[in-house]
Amino acid sequence: MADPNADPVGAFIPGPRLRLAGRGAANLPLAGLTFGAKDLFDVAGHVTGCGNPDWRRTHPPATGTAPAVQALLDAGATLVGKTKTQELAYGLTGENPWEGTPTNPAAPERFPGGSSCGSAAAVAAGLCDVSLGTDTGGSVRIPASYCGIFGIRPSHGAVSLAGVMPMAPSFDTVGWFARDAATLARLGDVLLAEGALGGRSLGGNGRGGNGLGGNGAAPALGPLVAVSNAWDNADAETEAALRPALKALEAAFGPALSLTLPWSGAQLYEAFRCAQGAEAWTTLGPWVERTSPAFGPGVQERFLAAKALPAEKAAAGRAVRAVVAGRMRGLLGGGAVLVYPTAPGPAPLLGADAHTQQAVRERIIANTAIAGLAGLCEVSLPAGKAGGAPVGLSLVAAPGQDRALLALARAAAGLLGL
Amino acid sequence: MADPNADPVGAFIPGPRLRLAGRGAANLPLAGLTFGAKDLFDVAGHVTGCGNPDWRRTHPPATGTAPAVQALLDAGATLVGKTKTQELAYGLTGENPWEGTPTNPAAPERFPGGSSCGSAAAVAAGLCDVSLGTDTGGSVRIPASYCGIFGIRPSHGAVSLAGVMPMAPSFDTVGWFARDAATLARLGDVLLAEGALGGRSLGGNGRGGNGLGGNGAAPALGPLVAVSNAWDNADAETEAALRPALKALEAAFGPALSLTLPWSGAQLYEAFRCAQGAEAWTTLGPWVERTSPAFGPGVQERFLAAKALPAEKAAAGRAVRAVVAGRMRGLLGGGAVLVYPTAPGPAPLLGADAHTQQAVRERIIANTAIAGLAGLCEVSLPAGKAGGAPVGLSLVAAPGQDRALLALARAAAGLLGL
Repeated sequence: MADPNADPVGAFIPGPRLRLAGRGAANLPLAGLTFGAKDLFDVAGHVTGCGNPDWRRTHPPATGTAPAVQALLDAGATLVGKTKTQELAYGLTGENPWEGTPTNPAAPERFPGGSSCGSAAAVAAGLCDVSLGTDTGGSVRIPASYCGIFGIRPSHGAVSLAGVMPMAPSFDTVGWFARDAATLARLGDVLLAEGALGGRSLGGNGRGGNGLGGNGAAPALGPLVAVSNAWDNADAETEAALRPALKALEAAFGPALSLTLPWSGAQLYEAFRCAQGAEAWTTLGPWVERTSPAFGPGVQERFLAAKALPAEKAAAGRAVRAVVAGRMRGLLGGGAVLVYPTAPGPAPLLGADAHTQQAVRERIIANTAIAGLAGLCEVSLPAGKAGGAPVGLSLVAAPGQDRALLALARAAAGLLGL
Repeated sequence: MADPNADPVGAFIPGPRLRLAGRGAANLPLAGLTFGAKDLFDVAGHVTGCGNPDWRRTHPPATGTAPAVQALLDAGATLVGKTKTQELAYGLTGENPWEGTPTNPAAPERFPGGSSCGSAAAVAAGLCDVSLGTDTGGSVRIPASYCGIFGIRPSHGAVSLAGVMPMAPSFDTVGWFARDAATLARLGDVLLAEGALGGRSLGGNGRGGNGLGGNGAAPALGPLVAVSNAWDNADAETEAALRPALKALEAAFGPALSLTLPWSGAQLYEAFRCAQGAEAWTTLGPWVERTSPAFGPGVQERFLAAKALPAEKAAAGRAVRAVVAGRMRGLLGGGAVLVYPTAPGPAPLLGADAHTQQAVRERIIANTAIAGLAGLCEVSLPAGKAGGAPVGLSLVAAPGQDRALLALARAAAGLLGL
């Protein structure tokens, strides 16, 4: 890029761009890569703004740098800016009234998706090679799907959350974006080595297996399992856009099994909303109460709902979560890979009213809560377009299978010509 | 029993009953139990008849005793007779024109099921406590279902096949029958310790976990996964008879996931028929060619079809098998347990014509080939009645999970009041 401060899509937070050169050795694994970091990640000496001016005003500069950021720097990548986030990561549209909603480079008339909106927009617009985001309920997967790029929500606990604003800690993950699957996997080689799960990954989690293929030898991952609930939840155009990608994967890897979960989308949404909401209020409520911050659309409502959440609803949500997690981990523990649309449709139009946005949110979470409730790892691939806008196809695997899943995503991207 | 030679259902082979007292110590695990052994198992000094007079005529007495038989004797059980088999184990009805078809004690107007017909009938009639059979395509599971008792086809390779007539070696297994799940599991403790898989069973394969239940701790087995293909393949009355059992298990273990396999029943049948037929001809064809034996209904036809099988059909069957095995092992490797009707219906009536029998056979194998092709372990529980005759419900787990599956079957039997 000619102007290193250029930001045609408004992906970075306002003000001077925060730059940190990575270590200079040319043989480092991420040498030459540029990255953005969602403004939920600490960088020493800078306030982590979390997308909200009242938060920025009431917090001191960070005293350390988040290990995930440091890991990329140490691997040779250069930080080229903090990227916008929906306030306190509590939203899936990416709207931010204070800093300006980033433009979706792939569909400018639509939301970029959130909460990691700036990280997705920056990568989609080519302003940096990769970026860090966080994903609690879909905040990497959804903007990846909406902006037509690759994104991963790793297994819960696979990448350190130190130095990252906690939202709902038992759901929070550090995820990342890239424009191609190979680069997505390169970051995995660096970040997953830092993670809590790094030392106890599953047997098939090595770098060798790209899953599902091979003659005779036990595959690292497989079989493919299409989740009918999530396919049925997609709108017709999205389903039609992504079905050929599934067919292409089946042609290479063999026909997928078809799975129907015993929970409705509404049940999954409600369980997620309550379990997450209770945690979010525990984590962020004290600051909200103390500060009475101004919030943009939807965020205020979600915090109010979280505050008002009856304890028994939160407990019921956690109970459903435990059941879903047990079932899904058992189902996927042998290497099976779920496949379904990341989101039920493309990004909503920027003019969508609050009611529409809420309806979209509930339908999204019916899909994203599968991995979210169960702590699974999920990669979204930019596999199609619906209404002229991108829609992602997700591959989802058991906790700890992150590297194998990234390798599988590379193979899938190759097959799909992505 | 007053008369130890009584055989009101014709379960044992004609002639003097072969008896071998087990070791006498009262503290042995199977002390006091009586058992029958299908006449496919060698007992030193006796001809293994395999259900066919020409076979008996052309084979010398066995020089050793099959390790599976010896293991029961060593564990304190007493052999009380060789039980009838459909000729060369090549059938699922249990019909035997030379020795007489055993009566199905639970439905005398119907076939007992085969090929381990005598073993099932003897246990169902209370003539012995347990019995050994073999299962290549369903030969334990089907008579267990038809006679209303418990039966297990263990993982391929889990119990030694030494001293047992080979039929289609890559499918053959040693299975067993009991009238209650606890006794079925007791035999597992003895037989599985002898098996090739004994030393490398899966993590969850211990005696402790009875699967699926528990609060918080990772279950030994789970989740339950209902295979819709196999449920849809069942006749309406069988489905209705077994659905309440599934509901009861779901009430205890949580709702089952629903899985649709990407292969039709006809595809599974054809793959099994061809892969098994080619092996059966390789194994038994030389004797058939040399001897030109007289065979009962169906057996002759199946050997002729096996002989005529084009090599490319056998190869295609093996290719499907490899795909099914890879998919199912991946799907079940995390502990998932499939649940579906053992057979599509109760035993056919004794008067059923050849065309009906063949149609029934094809529908049966659509269900039994799931475990058969993939080498899975399967327990059939006598969970219902259809048309006044027993029908079994199967629980099916990954290779090597035999002990955990037997423990789960005990828990399930308790829940179902069996």
